[in-house]
Amino acid sequence: MALQEMEKMKKMICPFQEAMDLISGKWTMSIINTLMGGKMRFKELERSVVGINTRMLVKELKQLESRKIIHREAFATVPPTVEYTLTEKGLTLKPVLMEIQGWAMKHMEK
Amino acid sequence: MALQEMEKMKKMICPFQEAMDLISGKWTMSIINTLMGGKMRFKELERSVVGINTRMLVKELKQLESRKIIHREAFATVPPTVEYTLTEKGLTLKPVLMEIQGWAMKHMEK
Repeated sequence: MALQEMEKMKKMICPFQEAMDLISGKWTMSIINTLMGGKMRFKELERSVVGINTRMLVKELKQLESRKIIHREAFATVPPTVEYTLTEKGLTLKPVLMEIQGWAMKHMEK
Repeated sequence: MALQEMEKMKKMICPFQEAMDLISGKWTMSIINTLMGGKMRFKELERSVVGINTRMLVKELKQLESRKIIHREAFATVPPTVEYTLTEKGLTLKPVLMEIQGWAMKHMEK
């Protein structure tokens, strides 16, 4: 509870730092970027996010789910299927992503 | 040299991931944000970037200098003065920063 209160305080004091904490995960923006194309299964995500391993992907997806950036839906198929989509909040990251991509294309090859 | 070649390859393959590597340091964007206001001495930066310690600030500044995002100028005063400014490339990060800040203000307090 005390930790939650601290988190709350931190959010009020510095939403910028909080946002940076969110997007600065090594794979976070790549996952969000991949999901901009629409819903995906775990295996598809694993193939699309180059260089990530299963354990890291599980961890990142859990974190993004707890931050309400992505939505996880499990289907009772055989074998079980899990699909991930961006939430409304997740979709609002599109202009941020595009700005970073635009900057990257212009400045990272130099 | 082999490492440099690999870095070069990586840049060509994925400028987006490269850009994310650059901006995803815990303090990187806060430092760049602070320097958007103009040149600063080391001590001023240390006071402005809340929560950073001296060792981390030295490390981050060296990395940003090697990536040509900031420029370091030393003056032969007594005691010696060192000033940091954003390079032209560093200044091009302004729209990226503003997009993240805008998003943070809208979505991180919820």
